[in-house]
Amino acid sequence: MKYDIKDIKLAKKGALRIEWARNNMPVLKLIFERFKKERPLKNLKIACCLHVTTETAALMEALKAGGATVALCASNPLSTQDDVAASLAAHLGILVFSVKGEDTKRYYRHIESALAMKPEITMDDGADLVSTIHRRSQTLHGNIIGGTEETTTGVIRLKALAKEGKLRYPIIAVNDAQTKHLFDNRYGTGQSTIDGIIRATNKLLAGATVVVCGYGWCGRGVAMRAKGMGAKVIVSEVDPLRALEATMDGYRVMPINEAARQGEVFVTVTGDTHIIRGRHFVSMKDGAIIANAGHFNVELDIPALEKLSRGKKRIRDFVDEYILKDGRKIYLLGEGRLINLASAEGHPAQVMDMSFANQALSAEYLAKMHRTLGRKVYGVPEAIDKNIARLKLKSMGIKIDTLTKEQRNYLSSWELGT
Amino acid sequence: MKYDIKDIKLAKKGALRIEWARNNMPVLKLIFERFKKERPLKNLKIACCLHVTTETAALMEALKAGGATVALCASNPLSTQDDVAASLAAHLGILVFSVKGEDTKRYYRHIESALAMKPEITMDDGADLVSTIHRRSQTLHGNIIGGTEETTTGVIRLKALAKEGKLRYPIIAVNDAQTKHLFDNRYGTGQSTIDGIIRATNKLLAGATVVVCGYGWCGRGVAMRAKGMGAKVIVSEVDPLRALEATMDGYRVMPINEAARQGEVFVTVTGDTHIIRGRHFVSMKDGAIIANAGHFNVELDIPALEKLSRGKKRIRDFVDEYILKDGRKIYLLGEGRLINLASAEGHPAQVMDMSFANQALSAEYLAKMHRTLGRKVYGVPEAIDKNIARLKLKSMGIKIDTLTKEQRNYLSSWELGT
Amino acid sequence: MKYDIKDIKLAKKGALRIEWARNNMPVLKLIFERFKKERPLKNLKIACCLHVTTETAALMEALKAGGATVALCASNPLSTQDDVAASLAAHLGILVFSVKGEDTKRYYRHIESALAMKPEITMDDGADLVSTIHRRSQTLHGNIIGGTEETTTGVIRLKALAKEGKLRYPIIAVNDAQTKHLFDNRYGTGQSTIDGIIRATNKLLAGATVVVCGYGWCGRGVAMRAKGMGAKVIVSEVDPLRALEATMDGYRVMPINEAARQGEVFVTVTGDTHIIRGRHFVSMKDGAIIANAGHFNVELDIPALEKLSRGKKRIRDFVDEYILKDGRKIYLLGEGRLINLASAEGHPAQVMDMSFANQALSAEYLAKMHRTLGRKVYGVPEAIDKNIARLKLKSMGIKIDTLTKEQRNYLSSWELGT
Amino acid sequence: MKYDIKDIKLAKKGALRIEWARNNMPVLKLIFERFKKERPLKNLKIACCLHVTTETAALMEALKAGGATVALCASNPLSTQDDVAASLAAHLGILVFSVKGEDTKRYYRHIESALAMKPEITMDDGADLVSTIHRRSQTLHGNIIGGTEETTTGVIRLKALAKEGKLRYPIIAVNDAQTKHLFDNRYGTGQSTIDGIIRATNKLLAGATVVVCGYGWCGRGVAMRAKGMGAKVIVSEVDPLRALEATMDGYRVMPINEAARQGEVFVTVTGDTHIIRGRHFVSMKDGAIIANAGHFNVELDIPALEKLSRGKKRIRDFVDEYILKDGRKIYLLGEGRLINLASAEGHPAQVMDMSFANQALSAEYLAKMHRTLGRKVYGVPEAIDKNIARLKLKSMGIKIDTLTKEQRNYLSSWELGT
Repeated sequence: MKYDIKDIKLAKKGALRIEWARNNMPVLKLIFERFKKERPLKNLKIACCLHVTTETAALMEALKAGGATVALCASNPLSTQDDVAASLAAHLGILVFSVKGEDTKRYYRHIESALAMKPEITMDDGADLVSTIHRRSQTLHGNIIGGTEETTTGVIRLKALAKEGKLRYPIIAVNDAQTKHLFDNRYGTGQSTIDGIIRATNKLLAGATVVVCGYGWCGRGVAMRAKGMGAKVIVSEVDPLRALEATMDGYRVMPINEAARQGEVFVTVTGDTHIIRGRHFVSMKDGAIIANAGHFNVELDIPALEKLSRGKKRIRDFVDEYILKDGRKIYLLGEGRLINLASAEGHPAQVMDMSFANQALSAEYLAKMHRTLGRKVYGVPEAIDKNIARLKLKSMGIKIDTLTKEQRNYLSSWELGT
Repeated sequence: MKYDIKDIKLAKKGALRIEWARNNMPVLKLIFERFKKERPLKNLKIACCLHVTTETAALMEALKAGGATVALCASNPLSTQDDVAASLAAHLGILVFSVKGEDTKRYYRHIESALAMKPEITMDDGADLVSTIHRRSQTLHGNIIGGTEETTTGVIRLKALAKEGKLRYPIIAVNDAQTKHLFDNRYGTGQSTIDGIIRATNKLLAGATVVVCGYGWCGRGVAMRAKGMGAKVIVSEVDPLRALEATMDGYRVMPINEAARQGEVFVTVTGDTHIIRGRHFVSMKDGAIIANAGHFNVELDIPALEKLSRGKKRIRDFVDEYILKDGRKIYLLGEGRLINLASAEGHPAQVMDMSFANQALSAEYLAKMHRTLGRKVYGVPEAIDKNIARLKLKSMGIKIDTLTKEQRNYLSSWELGT
Repeated sequence: MKYDIKDIKLAKKGALRIEWARNNMPVLKLIFERFKKERPLKNLKIACCLHVTTETAALMEALKAGGATVALCASNPLSTQDDVAASLAAHLGILVFSVKGEDTKRYYRHIESALAMKPEITMDDGADLVSTIHRRSQTLHGNIIGGTEETTTGVIRLKALAKEGKLRYPIIAVNDAQTKHLFDNRYGTGQSTIDGIIRATNKLLAGATVVVCGYGWCGRGVAMRAKGMGAKVIVSEVDPLRALEATMDGYRVMPINEAARQGEVFVTVTGDTHIIRGRHFVSMKDGAIIANAGHFNVELDIPALEKLSRGKKRIRDFVDEYILKDGRKIYLLGEGRLINLASAEGHPAQVMDMSFANQALSAEYLAKMHRTLGRKVYGVPEAIDKNIARLKLKSMGIKIDTLTKEQRNYLSSWELGT
Repeated sequence: MKYDIKDIKLAKKGALRIEWARNNMPVLKLIFERFKKERPLKNLKIACCLHVTTETAALMEALKAGGATVALCASNPLSTQDDVAASLAAHLGILVFSVKGEDTKRYYRHIESALAMKPEITMDDGADLVSTIHRRSQTLHGNIIGGTEETTTGVIRLKALAKEGKLRYPIIAVNDAQTKHLFDNRYGTGQSTIDGIIRATNKLLAGATVVVCGYGWCGRGVAMRAKGMGAKVIVSEVDPLRALEATMDGYRVMPINEAARQGEVFVTVTGDTHIIRGRHFVSMKDGAIIANAGHFNVELDIPALEKLSRGKKRIRDFVDEYILKDGRKIYLLGEGRLINLASAEGHPAQVMDMSFANQALSAEYLAKMHRTLGRKVYGVPEAIDKNIARLKLKSMGIKIDTLTKEQRNYLSSWELGT
C-alpha cells in the first residue's frame, strides 16, 4: 500500500501551503540543499510518526533529499492536514497513512502500515512507534539502528523504558536540544495554543481568567501569551521551584482544586494524566472552557466529565457543550486533544524550522554514528544545537557579538581582581 | 424579495453558532428581555448595514423583540458569515441581503435591497446606507427619523457631511460611547486583528517586527496585542500627541517610509487612505506581509501594488503572493479588507455585547426622542453608557466600590486643605 | 524677608542637580531662550506653590528669564529639596519659603510669605494659594489677573469653587493639557511612585500583590509599572467604565474591603479622602505596606490607624511601623504624603519638561489674554498643547508622518466609498 | 583588631534596618532557629567576603546562632552600609572590616584582616578570599575545610582554578542552586539595577532606549524590568542561543558597536571585561548614561573613557559627567561598580532570603560532609535546593499541588498510549 489518505485530489492545495511553510523554514532549506548534494541518508528507510502538517512536509523533503525512503503516519488522530498528506503522497512519493479525524483503530492500523516498511530509523512524536515496536517480538525490528523523539512526553516514556533496561536501540531526544525546547515549546506552543483556543471559541481573552496547569517550557509559553492577550492568569504546579518562578513572573499560583472555582478558560500542559478531573469539573463556573495542550488527551479526565453530564452537543466546530446535572455548561475544546493542532495549525513554521533541523541532523548523526551508541536516550550533540541557532539568527538578519581575545582570556583566568 | 443569501440550508449550523454568541452577550440579553416586554420599536422599520456575524444576529434578535421589522445587508463584502445569514432569514424573518465574497456590484445592489423597505431608522457600520441615501433625492426617504453609526470611519464621514450642512437626519455616533470605542476598538480590534493575521499566515509573531500604522484606539489595541505575542512593534503616526504616547508606551515611532524597510508584518488602522503606497512597497523586505484593520480597503494602495508586480498567486486562503519585478515577494492578506473579519470572526461576542447594547438602546432613544433632535451627529447619552458598563461588570461577577458620603462631599468641596 | 530655607550653604550642590534637570528638559529650555529675548512676563509678580524640586527650579529660571519677579513656597511639607531651595535663593534671587519636613504651621506661614509679594499671577499645585486667597477679603488680592493649577486634585477643588460662583479670577487648568496629564500623571507618577516605594522599603515587587486604589491616569500609571516589576496587581475603583478598563487590561478588580485582605502593598491615588480606613486596616495581612500617591495625605485614614495601634516606631527612613492591638504590623510610608516626593524625587525631569512648558506658556497666555477671560477654569489652548508635543518629539529625535493632500481630502470627504 | 568600620555610633540605626530585612527573610529565620538549637557550626571560624548589607547581617546572625565565629569584609568597596557594619560589630560581635568608599588598598587590607582569623570556611562573593589565599603559601591556610561562592563571576574564576588543578579545597557554588540564580540573579538584579539607575539619575525610562549587554539570568532580569518601565530595550550578546531567546522575547538584538549609537542608557551584566570600550564611547549620543551591574568594575572600560575626555565632574551623587573632546557628555554611574549596590541597596531581602538560606545550609553541609569532598567546585545538593523553595512558598502563603498516585505512575510508565 502506497498511502491511505483522505483524498489525493487535495494535493495541489497542499503543495501551495507546503511552499508557504518551506519559505518560512530557512534553516531546514539549507540542510535540504546540503542533503541533496551529500545524500547522507542513502539506502535508509525512515518511519515517521509526526503531526502531518505543512512543516512536517518540509522535513520529509529534506529526508528524501538526503536519500531516504520515508513512511509517515500521524502522531495524533486530529492533527492531520489532509491536503498535505495528499501532496506528500502525490508529489514526493512518501508512504503516507493518515486521515484527519481517524478513529483509534485506524490510527493504530496506520502505525502498523508505516512500520511495515521495516525502517532502520524511527522518528517519533510521542513515542508511539517505539512503544509499538517494543510490544512486539524483538526479531521483527532487528535492523533498526536508532530513533529520534520530538516531545517531552515521549522522552519521559523512553527514559522510563531505558531505566528498566528494556530500550532496544539508541534514541536521540530532539526535545532536549535547546534550539528545540526553548523555542518550540515556549514560543510555538504559546502562540499556537492561544490561536487554537481563539479559533475554537472567538472568546475575548482580555479580562478573562485563564488557568494554566503546568509551568514547564510549554506552560510558561501559554501563560505568557495569555497574559499578552490581557488575561488574568492563574498557574497550578506540583514543582516548588517552578511554582516560585510562576509567582515571581506575576502569576497567581494555587492548587487546581482552588483554581477550578475561579477560571473561565483552562489549559492543561503537563505531560501527565487526569490533571483536571471530576472533583474539579463540579466546582467550575457555568460556561467554563477546558482545553488541553499537552501531548496526550489524558490530561483532562473526559470520561469523568461524560459521567457528570446529562447531555452534550457540538455547538461550534471543535466546541462540545457538556450540560452538567445542575444545568451548568462546560465547553470542551477539540475533544481534549492538542488544541493547537486540533483547531489551529500547530507550531508556526518559524519554530518548526529549528525543531526539524534538529530532526534532520539527528537522523544524519544516527546514520553516521550509530555504531558508537548504546541502548540509551541521548541528547542532541551541542555542536549541532549551536550551529542551528547561528543559522537561524543569520536567516533573520540578526548579528551578534563575538568575544575579543582579551574577553576570552578573562573568562578563563582566575587572577584578575576587583 | 425576502432574502439574497448563499444557501438557506446553512441555517441550522448558523443557529448553533448564534446560540454561542448569544450566551456570550449577557448585556444584550437583558435588553432583549426588556424589549420583548416593552416593545419600544413597535411599528418601526430598521435597515441595517452591518457585518453579518453571529453577534450581529444577537442584535437582530433584540431589535425584532423590540417590535421592529428589520432588513440587513453587509457592511463589507468579505465579512458575511453565510450560515448566520441563513439562520436570520430562516428562523427570524430578517430580510437578509448578503453573501460572503460578493462583488462590488452585488454589494451595492444589496444595499439597495435593504433600503427598499423604506426604513424609519438606519443602522450603519461605515456610513454606506447614509451615503447612498444622501446621493438620492430627499423625497425618497422622507420618513427617516434617525440613524446610528458604529465606526470611527463612518463618524468622520458623517461629521464632514453635517459640517457642510447636508446631513438630513440625526445620527447617534455609537462609536463615541465609551463602552463602545474604549473596548470594541481597543480590546476587540486588538485581539481579532492578531487572530486574523495568524489564521491567514500561521506566522510566529515572537521576534517578528510588526509595524502598526495609526495609534488611535484600534491601533493601540493592535500594538498592545502584537507586543503581547512577543513582536517588536513599530508605530507610525501623524498626530504628535499620539506619537509621544506610543513612544512612552515603549514602541519605536518612525515615519512609514522608514518603517517600510524594517517591518515583517504591516497593519494599517487609521481610517484614512493610501497609508502604505508604491514608494513603501518598493522598499520592503522580501516576504513582507501587509494587512489592513481599518474600515475600508483603501488604507493599502493595492492598485499601486498590482502595478509594481509581475505576478500574483493565492498561496493560502486569504494570502495573495505578489511578485515584484526584482523577484521580492509581498503577501497581501484578505485582499486588503478588514483582516479580522476576512480571515477571522471579527470582534469577540464579549465586546460586541457592549457595542450592540449601545446600538439597541440608541435605536430605542431615537424612537422616543427623535422629535427633539436636529440634523446633527450626537453622542450616546452618558446615562446609557454608564448603565451598560454597570451591567457588564455585573455579568462578569465583578463588584466595585461606591463613594461614601464623606467622599462625595470631599469631591465637591474646595475648602479641605493640605 | 528674602527666604526661609534650610541652609543657604546647600546652594552649590543644588546648582549642580538643577543643571542635571535642566539638561533633561529640552522643551523648557527652548521656552527659556525665547522668554529671555521677548520678556513676556515683564513687570509681573508670580507667586508659586509647587514642589520645590530641581525641575521646578528650571521653571523658575524660565519665569525669571521672562521678566517676572517670583516667590516660591512648597505645595507639600515633605517634598522640598533643601539644596534646590538654597540654590534658587542664592543664585536666582527667587523668594523661597520652604523647608523639607516643616510642620503644618510653618507650611501655612510659608504660603503667607509667598502671597506677601502681592502677585498678579498664582501658580498652584493643589490649589493652596487660591484657597488661601479665597478665604481672605477680596480687596487684599485685587490685582490678580489669573492663575494656573497643576493637579487633578486642585482642578476638582477649583471647579467646585467656580460652580458655586465664588472663583475670583481665571484659572488655566494645566493638568487638563494632554501633554500634561497623559504623560506626567501616567508615566511620571507611575515610575516615581514605584521608585518611592522601593526606596522606602527595598521590597521585592515580583510576586507581591499590589493594590492600586483609583484607575485614573495616575492610577493606571502606577498599576502598569507595578505589573512591569512583576507584581500581581489588584485595582479598586468607583467608576464602572474605569473598572471595566482595568479588568480588560488584565487586573483583578474588587472593592477595597476585599482587596484589603489580599494585598501586601497598597497605593491610593484617587484625589478623594479616606480611601483606606479603619475597617480596612483591621483586615490587612501582617506586614502590609500602605502608601499614598494622591495629592493630599487624606487618602489613607491615618488618625484611624493611630487609634487602632498600640505602638509605633520609625524602622527605616520613611517607614513607620504601626503595631495593631493583636500584634500585626502595618507599615506606613512617608507619613501618608505623596510617596514619590517623600522618599523619591518626584516626576522625572523628562515629563516635568512638558508639564512646566505648559505652566510657562500658560503664564504667558494669562499675561497677554487675561482681559478676555472670565472667572472660570480654562483648559490650556490646544495650539500650545500640540506645539509642546511637537517640540518634545523633536528633542527626542523622533520623526512622524504628515498627512498627504489626498489623505487630508479623504478625511474631510463623505463620498468616497467601500 | 575587632573591627575597622566607619562609625560605631551608627549601630542603632543599623539595628533597626537589619530588623526590617530579617522580617522579610522568613526562610533564613527558620534556619536561624534550628541553628540556635542544633549548633551545627560549633567551633568553626568562618571568614566572609560579602556585600555588607542588612540582608548579609541576617545571614551573619544565622551563622553566629549556629555556633561559628565570624569575620566579615566587603566584596565591593562601594557596597558597604556603614550602619549595618556598626551594628554587626557592636551588637553581634562579628569581626567587621569594611567602610563604604574605601580605596583599593584599604579594601585589600580588610581582606587580610578577615583572613587573619585563620578560618575553616570561606564564604565569598566574587572569589576574593579564595584568590587571595591561593596567591599565598599553602601552609598558611591548611586548616580550611571548604568554601562557598555566591556569584556567577566567582564560579567562573573558581572553575578555571579547578580546571588547572590548583584549587586547594572544595567549594560549594551557591550561585548554581536554582533557588539562588533563578531568583536572585533574575528578579533581584532586575529590580535593584533599575532601582539603582533611577536613584542615581531620576531618568524617565518610559520611551528611553536601554541597552542591556548580556542575556544571562541577570541580563534578562534587567531587560524584563526595563521593558516593564516602558523602555525600548536592545540586547547585545555573544551566545547565539541567548541571542535567539532575546529576539523571541521581543527585544532587538544587535552588536554593541551598533547599539552604542542608539542607546540612551547602557547596562553591562556579562561577567566579562571591557564590554563597552573606547570605540563604543566615541559613537554614543550626547547625554548617554552608562552603568554596570556585573560583579566587577571592568565591564566598562573606564580608563579608555578617561582618556577620551577633556573634563569630568560629579554632577549628582553617583553620577560623573565625562566631557568628550567634541563636547558630548557621557554620564558614568557609581564609578562603574555594581550599580544596584552603589546607588541602591542591592537585592531585596525577599530574594536574599533564599540565596543566604543556601549559604547557611551549604556551610552546614561543609561542616558535616567535608571529608567526603574533593578539591572541586560542587553544586548545592538538590534536596537543600528544593527544600528552600518549599519553605519560601509556605512563607508566602502559597499552596501547590502534589502528584496523585495515578499521576506518579503515569510519569514512570511507558505503556500508556494515545
